[in-house]
Amino acid sequence: MSAAPGRAGPPPDGRPGGRFITLEGGEGAGKSTQALRLAGSLAAAGLPVLRTREPGGAPGAEALRAVLLGRGPSEPWDPVTEALLHFAARREHLAHTLRPALAAGIWVVCDRFLDSTVAYQCFGQGVPRALVDGLAALTLDGLRPDLTLVLDLPPAIGLGRVATRGGADRYERMPDATHERIRAGFRAIAAAEPERCELVEAARPPDVVAASLREAVGRRLGVPLVDPLPA
Amino acid sequence: MSAAPGRAGPPPDGRPGGRFITLEGGEGAGKSTQALRLAGSLAAAGLPVLRTREPGGAPGAEALRAVLLGRGPSEPWDPVTEALLHFAARREHLAHTLRPALAAGIWVVCDRFLDSTVAYQCFGQGVPRALVDGLAALTLDGLRPDLTLVLDLPPAIGLGRVATRGGADRYERMPDATHERIRAGFRAIAAAEPERCELVEAARPPDVVAASLREAVGRRLGVPLVDPLPA
Repeated sequence: MSAAPGRAGPPPDGRPGGRFITLEGGEGAGKSTQALRLAGSLAAAGLPVLRTREPGGAPGAEALRAVLLGRGPSEPWDPVTEALLHFAARREHLAHTLRPALAAGIWVVCDRFLDSTVAYQCFGQGVPRALVDGLAALTLDGLRPDLTLVLDLPPAIGLGRVATRGGADRYERMPDATHERIRAGFRAIAAAEPERCELVEAARPPDVVAASLREAVGRRLGVPLVDPLPA
Repeated sequence: MSAAPGRAGPPPDGRPGGRFITLEGGEGAGKSTQALRLAGSLAAAGLPVLRTREPGGAPGAEALRAVLLGRGPSEPWDPVTEALLHFAARREHLAHTLRPALAAGIWVVCDRFLDSTVAYQCFGQGVPRALVDGLAALTLDGLRPDLTLVLDLPPAIGLGRVATRGGADRYERMPDATHERIRAGFRAIAAAEPERCELVEAARPPDVVAASLREAVGRRLGVPLVDPLPA
């Protein structure tokens, strides 16, 4: 794929080829839909693409996803336990999926990553930021996204979208105030790291959001993208 | 229970009452049997006692025990993932069982704790010691055992005992060389922290080992213990 038009140079940290793009945001922000569309646009540009998600993206990590999103123990997980479980799933994802794919020059589009742990466990549930930053420093081998697309919308809109799906998971059922803190967390992350994060207004129609994401990826990573869907 | 004969003063870190005793060692070292006998001796001395184990000891932690000791994913867990899962179970145990029990003045006898993660994941599987020490510093709120009884025996003897039980778990099935490194790890821990750890020769008959443990607990924690079993 080295002759792909518009292919950007290697990332600044010396990794060969592949770029690591994450989508972040609260419940119902449209991350899965947009990840699918963005991966389609990258593939249409001739780039090798892997679409994946957290928690999950590797067999052991998907098993932990079931533990995390399911009913859980009769008492809720201690919030630090929950952060540790997310890092366990993330490490499995990193070891078996993310690192091999990026090393092979594959572009990775990932639905949630570290920022979700900061937003949900720190901003949402009160786990100290230093604890999550410490876990990241110990277990992620320095991996960070080349670009993070933060889909921002009021929780009331996102939860309304989720309600139409049915079968809400444990995170979707959290109190409204928690969802508000999580949104504020994602906005704070985007504001603190503008060189990595693009805040995208996600209450707009999916086609408009998708176009914004293509534009951001093209501008920041040097790959002009088009909508691969038939008009 | 404040009038229990021989009751030692509060531990030096300011925790009220309860003492935290851990049993450590490789497969088949007799930890479960000895934990049961030691708890019986403490109870016979008039002390409130909770016997527990890791991974496990709380509902969520027992669920993670099944994840850790079971078949696991088709690829083995990444060793760092495995360390994170042990810390997740440990945090749950700490939050829902250990901390409340110790705060209530209960003596806790625990079959495995942090030293097992150091021995198995660091010495056995090559996870950097600094990583496990870092996870402990971030997630254990400074909790450390008042006394650790390290049951030492050659792996060939321990694995021979385990074989007669049937149904070996994932750790019991590790290669012999790994079990040797784990034993060396436990011995190194005991040598490095003699003020906390008592190394006990565990190839001797169970009655003799039990007497050694009662003697060590009595000497180090100021509670003279007797064998509660009928002669």
